[in-house]
Amino acid sequence: MEISSLSHTSKAHKDNNKKMGIEMQNHQSHQAEGAPEEEPMSRWLIDTPEPPTICQELIGYVRTKVLSKKRNKTKKKPSNPVYSCLKSVFPILTWGRQYKLNMFKKDLMAGLTLASLCIPQSIGYANLAGLDPEYGLYTSVVPPLIYSTMGSSRELAIGPVAVVSLLLSSLIRELQDPITDPIAYRNIVFTVTFFAGMFQAIFGLFRLGFLVDFLSHAALVGFMAGAAIVIGLQQLKGLFGLSHFTNKTDVVSVLSSVFNSLHHPWQPLNFVIGSSFLIFILLARFIGKRNKKLFWIPAIAPLIAVILATLIVYLTNAETRGVKIVKNIKPGLNRPSVNELQFNSPHLGQIAKIGLISAIIALTEAIAVGRSFATIKGYRLDGNKEMMAMGFSNIAGSLTSCYVATGSFSRTAVNFSAGCETVVSNIVMAITVMISLEVLTRFLYFTPTAILASIILSALPGLIDISGALHIWKLDKLDFLVLLSAFFGVLFVSVEIGLLLAVGISFARIMLSSIRPNIEALGRLSRTDIFGDINQYPMASKTQGLLTLRISSPLLCFANANFIRDRILNTVGEVKEEDDEQEVKVETVLQVVILDMSCVMGVDTSGIVALEELHQELASNNIRLVIASPRWRVLHKLKRSTLEEKMKKENIFMTVGEAVEVYVRASSTSHDLC
Amino acid sequence: MEISSLSHTSKAHKDNNKKMGIEMQNHQSHQAEGAPEEEPMSRWLIDTPEPPTICQELIGYVRTKVLSKKRNKTKKKPSNPVYSCLKSVFPILTWGRQYKLNMFKKDLMAGLTLASLCIPQSIGYANLAGLDPEYGLYTSVVPPLIYSTMGSSRELAIGPVAVVSLLLSSLIRELQDPITDPIAYRNIVFTVTFFAGMFQAIFGLFRLGFLVDFLSHAALVGFMAGAAIVIGLQQLKGLFGLSHFTNKTDVVSVLSSVFNSLHHPWQPLNFVIGSSFLIFILLARFIGKRNKKLFWIPAIAPLIAVILATLIVYLTNAETRGVKIVKNIKPGLNRPSVNELQFNSPHLGQIAKIGLISAIIALTEAIAVGRSFATIKGYRLDGNKEMMAMGFSNIAGSLTSCYVATGSFSRTAVNFSAGCETVVSNIVMAITVMISLEVLTRFLYFTPTAILASIILSALPGLIDISGALHIWKLDKLDFLVLLSAFFGVLFVSVEIGLLLAVGISFARIMLSSIRPNIEALGRLSRTDIFGDINQYPMASKTQGLLTLRISSPLLCFANANFIRDRILNTVGEVKEEDDEQEVKVETVLQVVILDMSCVMGVDTSGIVALEELHQELASNNIRLVIASPRWRVLHKLKRSTLEEKMKKENIFMTVGEAVEVYVRASSTSHDLC
Repeated sequence: MEISSLSHTSKAHKDNNKKMGIEMQNHQSHQAEGAPEEEPMSRWLIDTPEPPTICQELIGYVRTKVLSKKRNKTKKKPSNPVYSCLKSVFPILTWGRQYKLNMFKKDLMAGLTLASLCIPQSIGYANLAGLDPEYGLYTSVVPPLIYSTMGSSRELAIGPVAVVSLLLSSLIRELQDPITDPIAYRNIVFTVTFFAGMFQAIFGLFRLGFLVDFLSHAALVGFMAGAAIVIGLQQLKGLFGLSHFTNKTDVVSVLSSVFNSLHHPWQPLNFVIGSSFLIFILLARFIGKRNKKLFWIPAIAPLIAVILATLIVYLTNAETRGVKIVKNIKPGLNRPSVNELQFNSPHLGQIAKIGLISAIIALTEAIAVGRSFATIKGYRLDGNKEMMAMGFSNIAGSLTSCYVATGSFSRTAVNFSAGCETVVSNIVMAITVMISLEVLTRFLYFTPTAILASIILSALPGLIDISGALHIWKLDKLDFLVLLSAFFGVLFVSVEIGLLLAVGISFARIMLSSIRPNIEALGRLSRTDIFGDINQYPMASKTQGLLTLRISSPLLCFANANFIRDRILNTVGEVKEEDDEQEVKVETVLQVVILDMSCVMGVDTSGIVALEELHQELASNNIRLVIASPRWRVLHKLKRSTLEEKMKKENIFMTVGEAVEVYVRASSTSHDLC
Repeated sequence: MEISSLSHTSKAHKDNNKKMGIEMQNHQSHQAEGAPEEEPMSRWLIDTPEPPTICQELIGYVRTKVLSKKRNKTKKKPSNPVYSCLKSVFPILTWGRQYKLNMFKKDLMAGLTLASLCIPQSIGYANLAGLDPEYGLYTSVVPPLIYSTMGSSRELAIGPVAVVSLLLSSLIRELQDPITDPIAYRNIVFTVTFFAGMFQAIFGLFRLGFLVDFLSHAALVGFMAGAAIVIGLQQLKGLFGLSHFTNKTDVVSVLSSVFNSLHHPWQPLNFVIGSSFLIFILLARFIGKRNKKLFWIPAIAPLIAVILATLIVYLTNAETRGVKIVKNIKPGLNRPSVNELQFNSPHLGQIAKIGLISAIIALTEAIAVGRSFATIKGYRLDGNKEMMAMGFSNIAGSLTSCYVATGSFSRTAVNFSAGCETVVSNIVMAITVMISLEVLTRFLYFTPTAILASIILSALPGLIDISGALHIWKLDKLDFLVLLSAFFGVLFVSVEIGLLLAVGISFARIMLSSIRPNIEALGRLSRTDIFGDINQYPMASKTQGLLTLRISSPLLCFANANFIRDRILNTVGEVKEEDDEQEVKVETVLQVVILDMSCVMGVDTSGIVALEELHQELASNNIRLVIASPRWRVLHKLKRSTLEEKMKKENIFMTVGEAVEVYVRASSTSHDLC
């Protein structure tokens, strides 16, 4: 349906005009006869060229795409085409040239702040994803580096995020339990990451960015809030130091699992450490919110919490008193994981599906975050380029022991507050994480797991957008329903069901508006030629003997043709009944039904059949069917259809106003004659 | 989306008006200031009442339904409510009273003609459905009798039909082979019939008639043609007297099966009998077509063929020479089959699914046939009532050894030609079939199976609507694609896939028109206030400094908001580029973008966000965004949204014309001032 060429005009169809001109001369002369007027507007209807066929449209589409590229190329004659192509794929080649030292100073500071938040979060999210802590750190190395060369956002902080981690663990757990065989589980995670990257890259390459739009804003708000609560509940395991915990993610299973575990002996020290540092981090955030200049306090609070907690455990030997600790983190940089991809797995279909879901969720989050910050800084994000960048980041990640990375809400905000200038802050962060992978991992041996839970918990409120939800409630009740269904679906059933429900309801709404379109009665606004919906404009007046109806659907097609026909006939029936009750005079009885088709972009064969039936049915009741302001394609199909010739010639008008005028004049002359 | 109450106006919202009136006074005064005009049309925008909320709409919908029924009831005060309810369910109570003897004479003749065609067809179709011959005859007894009391069509001939028989055998065969265990197969058939009836009755009760519309006319034409060819190929088994035959229905399997079988010895006598009587029936049809008065010749030709063939076989003992015969047909009327319904079957879900598919196919065929003959006779068929009648016919059928019955194309035409007046012809037919079940079954022992194949074959050309297909090709290429996909899907893959493909493509088209709507540039038609698509009206002229764009989608929502925003920005970019190239004067550079939202019925939160972003982006380029003719709900959401106050107050106009006028006046005054 995409007609991209707004400037693609009638040149190609001039020859068709002539033919039609002859064919339609009758119409014109007849018009003039029926309603003696200097220039009946309907002549414009006659003069319209034939609309382009589907083939012509496709050719035109391709041509404009190619031509526009050519035009751009001729402009940039001096530059090397290979180099300009490279530049479009790697924006770093463009902005890298203008990169200056004082920019680097800012990026360095932002990158270091980012790293201090990123290291504890990565470890925590890896835990949430069912992986060993080092995999979270790995994911904060390779994807940000790749993204920084290909991405077009300047603020996005790439790495593991909470929601995708939850999504992966909850979906992959159904294929492979991470506790019984962690290696097999990990391999599936890498394969899913590979698929996610492939899907994202394909979306970008084939400009399928609209697929990301299918998860509407409302669905995303509901989904994020539900996921945040589910993630929070998952952290109860770490916070209470529980050993037995459910694999399910829904509220009921998790809460019952917690209550069951509490009957067994549990280690309150974990809870003390976790909750006290949670309070510490929240306090730091409170300070940061009160004074925008102190943004770095909440940013480095998690790292300080980790260091303090680790030191406390190390110095007091708390691990012997039941405090659960992280233990071994493998030191060293990312190991290649090419050989660990499972393309022969019997679950390959499932794995690809999980890859697709996480690709879409990851992209939706990254693009939403990236767009909002780009708008603040006043530049535009190219969705398709972002997808390519994210896709290649994840493909590279899947080959180097990373799991699905995307743009993080919380860290991007920190990056922005810290005054980053370009994605160099991501590079700084990645290098810092690399160094800590080499140096710090031994130190993290004594880090209590409860502190990781509290770091994740502290990041969750940012995912719950209550004011956004209220705004949606105020604006659109159906959108709010989508939000609620995503929220409760995630909360009480599963992540997948929540998403499916939200997308399903969103699309059902679109379908419904096509299957059950509005048919509005129109009335004339006094002293104008404007006809408006009589519900919207109660002051609009109807013309006696006329019924003007507007079809508010872009397609008059198989799915709604019968409905529209029946609705029109019912309305006509109602009007006639009223007329009978009020015993109106013969000359003011319903004589003409004007169908305003200005919103109907196309008809199919069923639509034409419905119009024919409508015409016949009305004719048998001595009512004339008149079509006003048909659009290009509709007009054309009406001409080619088997609709009665008389109908085609006399009863198609340019506007509702013209149709009404012709009717009023005709009826007044006939009245005079009487 | 259905707003059924066209007359449901603003009374309920009067109080809201006041509030809004105050809020919008600024707007009015401001308008007057900016453009000194007696009555700015935008005041109408201000005076619009609030649109009804979803709750109010639902209440209004229910109220109008109930009220309209009450009104009807008060009119018919004298009649008993139970009786009037009964009359609406059983139309026979209404027309039965006026039934006269001369009508019965016609119905008797039509019924007898119908029976003579129905008996051989029923036996053949039962064979096609994988059942013993008597079950076809049973199906021609009970469903027509039930239908004749409840149906509203006067011509529809109810009974087994070819396409549904094929559908049942091809789908049920996957669950149970009819040869290895015919009783289990039969029981599944009855259960499917029960489900089909239940679904049909439910569709009728809950007014879900639109579900039948989902199978578009084009899909039906393609499906029927494909099914006819598949059925024809299945008849090769009977025609050649083959013993080994494939269970699959696609062309490739069937043809290879036929060629493989031909290597084995086969009985040419079957082919001789079958093809000679096929020629006889086709000749009879040719005569009937040439002379409309001799319509009874093709109608009784099949019965004569059966009688002649049976006599020949009986007299020549041809069955000993390899001619396959029907053999035992159980004499006697329908036996009850209540105990044979399989509600505990492990395949219950599958059975229900097959029931649903055959319910929809059967309904589509019956309603299509019924409607076309109703239109000829000039009355209207109530789709929901028809569904109820068909549903109860099939439920009753499933309890009395019948399989799915529906309205037959060929027999309805014969019924009509034979001059039937009411459904009494169906009753006559059913009684005739009952008598033959008691009397004739012994005679049918020697009927050769080849004759059944030739009777089915002779009925198939009626299912292939070539002129209809050509008409579709002429009118709508996409509809033709739907037709082709149904046709080739049925032919080369399976009945299910063909249907799925056709429905899928049809809906993809509707979705596509919502996801990728047209954005059209508008121009003014000279000396009028009409703005038309510049592609449709090449003579339309653009105003300098203005870009008028129309969004042709009923919803500005999550699925298309980003696309629409980007398209508008791209178009603006193109116009600016052209301006730069042509080095236009400052005062004629693009300054205002007018968005004609007259076709947009609703926005969701994503749509509002897209408008905000568009407003910001354009503002940063010194371009003003103006919204013209917003619809009720859209206007309301714009008011409640977070769109900039200034935008809301100054830049919303009643029509494109008004917006252009205000701009032109403003720019001319500013020009004068310079």
